[in-house]
Amino acid sequence: MSKSLPKRSENYSEWYNELVKRADLAENSAVRGCMVIKPYGYSIWEKMQRALDDMFKETGHTNAYFPLFVPKSLFEAEEKNAEGFAKECAVVTHYRLKNNPEKPGKLMVDPEAKLEEELIVRPTSEAIIWSTYKNWIQSYRDLPLLINQWANVVRWEMRTRLFLRTAEFLWQEGHTAHATREEAIAETEQMLHVYATFAEEFMAVPVIRGKKTANERFAGAEDTYCIEAMMQDGKALQAGTSHFLGQNFAKAFDVKFMTKENKQDFVWGTSWGVSTRLMGALIMAHSDDEGLILPPKLAPIQVVIVPIFKGQEQLELISNTILPIVKELKKRGISVKFDNSDKQSPGFKFAEYELKGVPVRLAIGARDLGNGTVEVARRDTKEKKTYPIEGIVDTISTLLDDIQVNIYQRAFNFRTENTYKVDTWEEFTKILEETPGFIAAHWDGTSETEEKIKELTKATIRCIPLDAVEEEGKCILTGQPSSKRVIFAKSY
Amino acid sequence: MSKSLPKRSENYSEWYNELVKRADLAENSAVRGCMVIKPYGYSIWEKMQRALDDMFKETGHTNAYFPLFVPKSLFEAEEKNAEGFAKECAVVTHYRLKNNPEKPGKLMVDPEAKLEEELIVRPTSEAIIWSTYKNWIQSYRDLPLLINQWANVVRWEMRTRLFLRTAEFLWQEGHTAHATREEAIAETEQMLHVYATFAEEFMAVPVIRGKKTANERFAGAEDTYCIEAMMQDGKALQAGTSHFLGQNFAKAFDVKFMTKENKQDFVWGTSWGVSTRLMGALIMAHSDDEGLILPPKLAPIQVVIVPIFKGQEQLELISNTILPIVKELKKRGISVKFDNSDKQSPGFKFAEYELKGVPVRLAIGARDLGNGTVEVARRDTKEKKTYPIEGIVDTISTLLDDIQVNIYQRAFNFRTENTYKVDTWEEFTKILEETPGFIAAHWDGTSETEEKIKELTKATIRCIPLDAVEEEGKCILTGQPSSKRVIFAKSY
Repeated sequence: MSKSLPKRSENYSEWYNELVKRADLAENSAVRGCMVIKPYGYSIWEKMQRALDDMFKETGHTNAYFPLFVPKSLFEAEEKNAEGFAKECAVVTHYRLKNNPEKPGKLMVDPEAKLEEELIVRPTSEAIIWSTYKNWIQSYRDLPLLINQWANVVRWEMRTRLFLRTAEFLWQEGHTAHATREEAIAETEQMLHVYATFAEEFMAVPVIRGKKTANERFAGAEDTYCIEAMMQDGKALQAGTSHFLGQNFAKAFDVKFMTKENKQDFVWGTSWGVSTRLMGALIMAHSDDEGLILPPKLAPIQVVIVPIFKGQEQLELISNTILPIVKELKKRGISVKFDNSDKQSPGFKFAEYELKGVPVRLAIGARDLGNGTVEVARRDTKEKKTYPIEGIVDTISTLLDDIQVNIYQRAFNFRTENTYKVDTWEEFTKILEETPGFIAAHWDGTSETEEKIKELTKATIRCIPLDAVEEEGKCILTGQPSSKRVIFAKSY
Repeated sequence: MSKSLPKRSENYSEWYNELVKRADLAENSAVRGCMVIKPYGYSIWEKMQRALDDMFKETGHTNAYFPLFVPKSLFEAEEKNAEGFAKECAVVTHYRLKNNPEKPGKLMVDPEAKLEEELIVRPTSEAIIWSTYKNWIQSYRDLPLLINQWANVVRWEMRTRLFLRTAEFLWQEGHTAHATREEAIAETEQMLHVYATFAEEFMAVPVIRGKKTANERFAGAEDTYCIEAMMQDGKALQAGTSHFLGQNFAKAFDVKFMTKENKQDFVWGTSWGVSTRLMGALIMAHSDDEGLILPPKLAPIQVVIVPIFKGQEQLELISNTILPIVKELKKRGISVKFDNSDKQSPGFKFAEYELKGVPVRLAIGARDLGNGTVEVARRDTKEKKTYPIEGIVDTISTLLDDIQVNIYQRAFNFRTENTYKVDTWEEFTKILEETPGFIAAHWDGTSETEEKIKELTKATIRCIPLDAVEEEGKCILTGQPSSKRVIFAKSY
């Protein structure tokens, strides 16, 4: 172990960057803005993928794969729908390199291999997918079409941060087509709830389910739903979005169908996505100055067992006791690592597994063996307790469930403590400066006011919560009447 | 169902193309050379991925993710190792589009957003990965490094065919680093055997395990191992390769490590991959003029149950009997579809599931109910039999195992019947013209002869089988002495 992590309280941002690297989650690559997701980080992402994919399939979706490239002309058809990120993208203009005649050993773009039409590396796949759906959909019998894709996408970001904002990232994008407006809205809402359930039950991150204001909406959408999570610095992180597209993309790509009543109509669309950004949310929501804290449901290693021994004989004695426990844990689907290497000291190992966020650590030495006990440390509370070896598998199993619940509850309490109901502009600005968090406040419903507030405070409306209560109030900035509170925060 | 498929005997190539489209496996996209993998096709690929991924993990590998782009300078370092496809690739030269001032509504590449260094869309990831490994490997303690990546890659192919050769395709690429030559060779061979086991046990496709000749070797490799399968037209399809890279990439990217003996040495590398090309092999190895034939282990739907009914009442009676069977099948991990839709006739459904290659079909009507029986049809032999409903789940389970074995055996017999031991040039050319297949023949070991044979017959040396017997012989073309037979064939 090298030097310790920066402290959250001193430099939250540095703490995050260092943690991502030291815990072997990801690192910057030789390509500007693109990251390498390292094996340990990727194994967490795989667990996320598996859980989400199961939920998508349970709700009737299937996976497919569409091309990486979008021809410029298709992009133009979509452009008015997706102005936001449409233009900052990677453009393929040539299809060959050749030896540079002037510089031996060097390559150059072959000017004779210029594409007739430029290809854009997909920043999102609406254009290519809706242009395909045109051929797949003729009649109401072809609907709904419920398709998801796991893919890499590229958006040319100028300022990047590992997981939170990278030029290339991994994500899933669902693209569905429906016969009616109501069905498409129901789908949009269903997928928002799938994301919220995943965030809360697997990531142990409580989220607010809401709608974006017109300003923050995906350009091609009639409505954008989102889940918003609070990080430990009080900032919000948008963890997933689900868009009701109306008939916008169907019109842009001429996707019509024959209704049951034998009429031609445009289909109704949705799209929804979460990305490797979730890794950032997971890390920032729970971890501490010693390293990661992972919820057991997403931890690649749920239990680590560290033997404390001198010499091969002691190790063998410990192994005799431990190996049947390892076997039994695996049988129950609990992932366990018995770290019997003699290259590092137990202290080194403890620090390493703390850094990596392993939820439960067992330590056992010769004296424990004699007593028939084992020391159990939980990562979330750092509590250590001695338990009898007899029944230890049940103990661990219960403990993992406890940790999952506790991590969620802690994040929930943190959010509650850092959420403020505010009715005056003075209080609003004071909180944002002194104790950032979520602010539930009234807003007059106009984009002008929203922008003005952003300009003055850097806070944006994260969402209009789906469960917002109707109440009479006045906009914190303009004093104009308002009927419900929205959530303001600074955000990632 | 529209018109029937082209017949294999009349136009094998058209039969394949049509089958891929009609069975909803894949189609061409709006992007030249790139395919859309449709949901049914993708669900087969997912099953392949899952099985392979499990095998990779069982052999100690973990997944990671490296950038899509390779900076041109890294490409140059690798170039001498990978001349083959290195130059036909998608080149990103710009990072922004802008509105075209002369054509309202149109976009153009922003000339001000030219990249300082061009980025290549990865045709394979050796360059980016080995440049990363340089930072990950310092000591023998960091070895072996056993990493796999699931990714999309792009090679600018001029003539493309769905699954078999596409500009973009999906694959996995393993990249490992080792402390010794022996270890790296053992890894290369292990992964070849993993591929062969997968092909034979899951795809039910028998393969020959062998080494490529120097001519056919991956440019950066010291040795390329491969598995070769025979398609129903007698042609060979290379279904997977595993490369022993020696120290070539370590030298190109300066990846050194401290040995146990405290010396600096270059690390030893391997890489190995299979791609969506396997889909092509799967389709062409087994299917017939009625459609796909899928091995049960990779079939998205293993069993379909088609009720034959008039009116809701009959359907309900049938459902009462069938639903508990469906439940029991699912409990055993067998994927089953009960197709109770009344939109299509049973005959239409039969043809559809035949086209889709569902291994087992049950049909049950009112009369069967009375008799306590059900009609069971197997896709591979088209045999139909009536079985008692009592015990049907066991019957189906056994049948699925039988089909998996039978499909393999049939392909194995086909290969045996179409493999020829040949000792004269006359016979060699005659077989290639009249009854193409695998030809085991002697070769003098020179690249010149190999090329000459290719020129004269279009047949290449598919591999030098690992289990080739030592025997004295004479090269079929030159008459020079040879000590073992190699496999010649025309290939995909």
